[in-house]
Amino acid sequence: MEQGGDDIQALIALMARLPGLGPRSARRIVLQLVRRRSQQMVQLSQLLDRVAQNSRECVVCGNITDRDECAICTDPARATGEICVVQDVADLWALERGRAFRGRYHVLGGTLSALDDVGPEDLGIPTLLARIDDESITEVILALNATVDGQTTAHYIADALEGSPVTVTGLAQGVPIGGELDYLDDGTITAALRARRRL
Amino acid sequence: MEQGGDDIQALIALMARLPGLGPRSARRIVLQLVRRRSQQMVQLSQLLDRVAQNSRECVVCGNITDRDECAICTDPARATGEICVVQDVADLWALERGRAFRGRYHVLGGTLSALDDVGPEDLGIPTLLARIDDESITEVILALNATVDGQTTAHYIADALEGSPVTVTGLAQGVPIGGELDYLDDGTITAALRARRRL
Repeated sequence: MEQGGDDIQALIALMARLPGLGPRSARRIVLQLVRRRSQQMVQLSQLLDRVAQNSRECVVCGNITDRDECAICTDPARATGEICVVQDVADLWALERGRAFRGRYHVLGGTLSALDDVGPEDLGIPTLLARIDDESITEVILALNATVDGQTTAHYIADALEGSPVTVTGLAQGVPIGGELDYLDDGTITAALRARRRL
Repeated sequence: MEQGGDDIQALIALMARLPGLGPRSARRIVLQLVRRRSQQMVQLSQLLDRVAQNSRECVVCGNITDRDECAICTDPARATGEICVVQDVADLWALERGRAFRGRYHVLGGTLSALDDVGPEDLGIPTLLARIDDESITEVILALNATVDGQTTAHYIADALEGSPVTVTGLAQGVPIGGELDYLDDGTITAALRARRRL
């Protein structure tokens, strides 16, 4: 049962635990890396090490950065008075790829969940409320997932801001660009119909 | 457009070039690694580095190993007089997982291809013929893919061994275990019918 030695087997096992990978895809990746071990594999090892040493959460918004505060939080042009609340860093990156939002972010790092015992403090919601005061925010955009947990969290934050002067908004719901009605779930179609607009 | 710094973007780009991954899955993997940077990421970096330093091809059979000769080539119990010819190391591993073959291997590293200008020397076929003499091999099992290139290569090796005393065999073709006839291609069904056996 020699399959490349213990280190290779350990590497495959570790790779197989990454999201979206399993034993088969991890084996394929490791075999290709071993074939290109003098270049791709060494480069990957060094980059992983550098990122592991240097990456951290932005102390203000929770974005991943290689400094104490991320480039969005330190960019004065992005002090627009708008703050966009997202669940994960992946959501922040998705919004940045769209280039539509020019304000700042607040990464919760999860959603409220009674089952998993995740409360407002675990998500840094008090910090968010403090930032809204400190940074003279005028609009809070709750860009949370359209799931039960995401919407519960959005409602909680909206409630906490009740009576404060900031405007609280959420993302529009409707038919995705390029979406075919036939393939959409009933909930989305109903939401799109309710929120219909004059052309 | 701050998305974690240049190193993170370079890491995502490098990951996205691995087989089976793309930009989206690479981003998901890198984000999870950054979240677990003090453990999983450091461990992965170190394992990749160790494997890149220590792995090499077995000088005899072409298997991946951390020594000069792999554990199969140095195990006297596997000098059964049988040699199994495979295209890639991945195929060798697949056969080892099945635990059905107890002889030794020869990894070609590809298939003959006039289009890609791959000749017998590029695949180490002369080395294979030399091993058959040196190791007093009695049976050569051509475990090559059932593709045109794989079968061309198998025919070439069988021709080269014409007149020598070794038995040349190939893997049986037929219905895979658990396979449903309805989902099989016509070629497989025809092959399985032609090679039918008495029960």
